[in-house]
Amino acid sequence: LRCLIQAQALGMAVINSVGIAEMAGTNAPQVRKDLSYLGELGTRGVGYDVDALTAHISERLGMGTERRIAIAGFGRMGSALFSYGGFAQHGFLAVAILDSDPEKVGTTVDGVTVRHIDELEDVLSEENVEILVLTTPVEVTREIAKRAAAVHVKAILNFAPVRLDLPADVAVRQVDLSTELQVLSFHLVHRAR
Amino acid sequence: LRCLIQAQALGMAVINSVGIAEMAGTNAPQVRKDLSYLGELGTRGVGYDVDALTAHISERLGMGTERRIAIAGFGRMGSALFSYGGFAQHGFLAVAILDSDPEKVGTTVDGVTVRHIDELEDVLSEENVEILVLTTPVEVTREIAKRAAAVHVKAILNFAPVRLDLPADVAVRQVDLSTELQVLSFHLVHRAR
Repeated sequence: LRCLIQAQALGMAVINSVGIAEMAGTNAPQVRKDLSYLGELGTRGVGYDVDALTAHISERLGMGTERRIAIAGFGRMGSALFSYGGFAQHGFLAVAILDSDPEKVGTTVDGVTVRHIDELEDVLSEENVEILVLTTPVEVTREIAKRAAAVHVKAILNFAPVRLDLPADVAVRQVDLSTELQVLSFHLVHRAR
Repeated sequence: LRCLIQAQALGMAVINSVGIAEMAGTNAPQVRKDLSYLGELGTRGVGYDVDALTAHISERLGMGTERRIAIAGFGRMGSALFSYGGFAQHGFLAVAILDSDPEKVGTTVDGVTVRHIDELEDVLSEENVEILVLTTPVEVTREIAKRAAAVHVKAILNFAPVRLDLPADVAVRQVDLSTELQVLSFHLVHRAR
């Protein structure tokens, strides 16, 4: 999808699997195979209609619908994510912020009032939150995730370096920045040897 | 490593593969297999010495050495990452900040002066930077990555949603937050159907 949006920006009407593969860093047969799961979308010898394929993939990813996000933990990472332009651009709308710090609770940021984490369930329901972003301290993260899953939140993006233990119908994506750096560090050591 | 550090915090002297597997969200045979690559570390029927295994893995990951990081792009994400406590805690030290905004260049944050992105090569050399964190706009990210790789930076953590095209000896880890949300969005659609 990102490649296709780039192709649109470049004014391309048609793109073939070789072109997509180059942009995405993979190979053309893989692109054709992956896209074949979505149906017969391309024209042999020509390629894919950029606009049609963009619309099709967006729809399959559920990108047509606006998704409402809550951010739990409004420290440095939480506030950076709240202000991060990239989310809104893709239809993800941060509608709620939760924290336990009395100095933060009750303050308003870009029209969103910080609520106390004790009110998590109420806030998630009131605001029809579908995705919870966790930037909470490790010690409390599992409990908060469980509480969210127990109401209706079925998707969690977790920045806390702790594995969440949730029912199978809750999708979790883990972003662990320290682990990313450790992988790079391993590469540096390995390379030097 | 994260699990072992937790185990240390819990005062455990010994941990077996079942315990590590539970903490890490995998199974015990997998833990034993993975750890066997590091040599014969555990005692059959007893488990692993927590301190010894922690030290061993840390050393293999190159965690004994302090790693010097530069952050290019000092917007919201860049400044959040600079202030992120989790990095320093793991021995990653942010020693340089680069941006092109004249209002930011020359200002000092926690002892680090923001330098102009045009000076990238000089800054990376002067500060002995090993890892470059990119939170730059998409349009300029590839070029900056190439310039860094052309000097001596062999590890890049890229937050910009663009694939970097770099020599094979440069390790790149990509953190794409919008893609993470799109994966969650796909799960929500798929589930609803």
